[in-house]
Amino acid sequence: MAISKATKTPKLIVKRGALKALPAMVKNCGKRFVIITDSHLKTQSELLLKAMRAAKLTCHVMVIPAGEHSKSLAMVEKIVRALARLGVARDGCLIGFGGGVVGDITGFAASIYMRGIAYVAVPTTLLAMTDSSIGGKTGVDLDEGEVPGTGGKNMLGAFYDPCLIIADPSVLTSLSDRAYKSGLAESIKHGVIASQPFFNFMAKHSGEILRRSPAILEKMIAQSIKIKQSIVAKDARESLAKAKKGTSRMLLNYGHTVGHALEKLSNYELPHGEAVAIGMVAENRVAVGKKLLKEKDALRIFLLLKRYSLPVKIPPRYTSYAIKKALSSDKKMIDGKLYFALPVRVGKAKIVAL
Amino acid sequence: MAISKATKTPKLIVKRGALKALPAMVKNCGKRFVIITDSHLKTQSELLLKAMRAAKLTCHVMVIPAGEHSKSLAMVEKIVRALARLGVARDGCLIGFGGGVVGDITGFAASIYMRGIAYVAVPTTLLAMTDSSIGGKTGVDLDEGEVPGTGGKNMLGAFYDPCLIIADPSVLTSLSDRAYKSGLAESIKHGVIASQPFFNFMAKHSGEILRRSPAILEKMIAQSIKIKQSIVAKDARESLAKAKKGTSRMLLNYGHTVGHALEKLSNYELPHGEAVAIGMVAENRVAVGKKLLKEKDALRIFLLLKRYSLPVKIPPRYTSYAIKKALSSDKKMIDGKLYFALPVRVGKAKIVAL
Repeated sequence: MAISKATKTPKLIVKRGALKALPAMVKNCGKRFVIITDSHLKTQSELLLKAMRAAKLTCHVMVIPAGEHSKSLAMVEKIVRALARLGVARDGCLIGFGGGVVGDITGFAASIYMRGIAYVAVPTTLLAMTDSSIGGKTGVDLDEGEVPGTGGKNMLGAFYDPCLIIADPSVLTSLSDRAYKSGLAESIKHGVIASQPFFNFMAKHSGEILRRSPAILEKMIAQSIKIKQSIVAKDARESLAKAKKGTSRMLLNYGHTVGHALEKLSNYELPHGEAVAIGMVAENRVAVGKKLLKEKDALRIFLLLKRYSLPVKIPPRYTSYAIKKALSSDKKMIDGKLYFALPVRVGKAKIVAL
Repeated sequence: MAISKATKTPKLIVKRGALKALPAMVKNCGKRFVIITDSHLKTQSELLLKAMRAAKLTCHVMVIPAGEHSKSLAMVEKIVRALARLGVARDGCLIGFGGGVVGDITGFAASIYMRGIAYVAVPTTLLAMTDSSIGGKTGVDLDEGEVPGTGGKNMLGAFYDPCLIIADPSVLTSLSDRAYKSGLAESIKHGVIASQPFFNFMAKHSGEILRRSPAILEKMIAQSIKIKQSIVAKDARESLAKAKKGTSRMLLNYGHTVGHALEKLSNYELPHGEAVAIGMVAENRVAVGKKLLKEKDALRIFLLLKRYSLPVKIPPRYTSYAIKKALSSDKKMIDGKLYFALPVRVGKAKIVAL
């Protein structure tokens, strides 16, 4: 029996209705399965459990509270203890069924349990499908604890790939409008940093995309993933040496430097995609100020975000002093410098140390 | 500036007096250093800190309590919070200065902090030099917590290599007799599973080795490491598929299946090497019973362990029922079977599922 472990190119399935075939797809990934999901997906996860058991697979479900606050070391400990209690051994397999939070914590738990067991990512939000489930980043946040300044988002984690990613666009129809639109920000970002044709696709099909037409979603998700994977493939571990050559996956951080600071200041109440949209516009201003980006390109990006009703302004309650302070504890701070991914035109970006 | 990350073949230095040159050796591994050490090495670590600072390197020290009980998730959290408070970023570098416990927890903390920063292993015990610092295994134990059966040794961890391993045999002169001899068990094990010449070396030079002659120690440590590295290189992630082909690093588990059970039953009071020595003799009996190993080879191994005053009998307070129960929660249990690494002669072992 082969134990499925982290691999360099996880198998990817983007297909309407894929969820229905999940047991057959995952059955070679392990011998004992545990679905990790959140409280919003309790009913759907029970259906999945039934399907797994009907296919004669040993399977359990663990439900964690929905929300970013579940991305904690304490929750990882709860999960691994549950795995030990269920007798999950090195041939076990976790199925992360949910959005970015579920994916990040499931992947991290899988990466450290017995020094790594298999996991399957089943993203259920647009953001998780096109972004967080792709590229092997897993992790949890560190809360502020007793000593201020000792916490941060994704402060602990691992680069660890699932053996399989299953994205079923049909599940997106039940997503709230806000969560759905928030997810679109990452696809627009992919267009800006790496593909003018995809940016144009996002502009041209905005009507169908906003109506969540399954056919267009399948295309959009597959293309968005392809862009992210091609960037990640050149730099799986986000090395700074590669940043200098311009091939770094830090390019994906466009919008995220300011975005993460805003998320932190909002105590993670601000949805990730909205924070990134605001961050893109703010970082465009930096790029225009540095004469890296033309004003008219910044405007095109601004207008596309607006077309998808994404927020583009820093909420006035966050002062620039507070934002700068939040930026200073950013993981992207190296050697006293903060590394920004800034667009130079629609379809191309570069890493700049400021 | 290059960020040193996990590499496939960490650079290795085995040299008397190497510690004195440590600052020059590590200076390219990172920009901000934190020495992690234990309470037994407080004085020596302060000398190291002085030397680092004299070499104009930014360096701090963190002292954790000595003993296996420090290998906990709670201690990892303490360490990473301290790193955040000290402003350690992705260009930081941890220096694990101590025995196996310090090495395991430092490597694990380095592997998950900001998804992986550099670390340097500076093992100070024989066991850590020849065994635990080699091969990329890092991790912590999971205590039993509130629910029985949810804990275990090395239940959480990562495969993560240091960028540099510095073994200075001079530090071994201050090791207690018990700790020193305990370390020899792993070298004898390396001879049994992979190299008859090295087994013979251990037999021929037992007098000098027991007197801790620096010249012979340098040779013994370098050869012992070479054997372990050659086994690990064929199977960095300990896959079961490779176990079937006989090239698995699970070969290194010889003596460890029974050994870990004894350590667990002793609440980790029994030194690791002693547990392994007892385990080797117990597992030899299994091998002889299965007609895999000749009685005379089992006797040679037994006699060499005795020559080094290592224990060879299971203490009578551990019943075979208790040992079997402890074995059943072993990580090496796959698919309901327990995988043993058993010698077939002096210098060769194989994986057997029982």
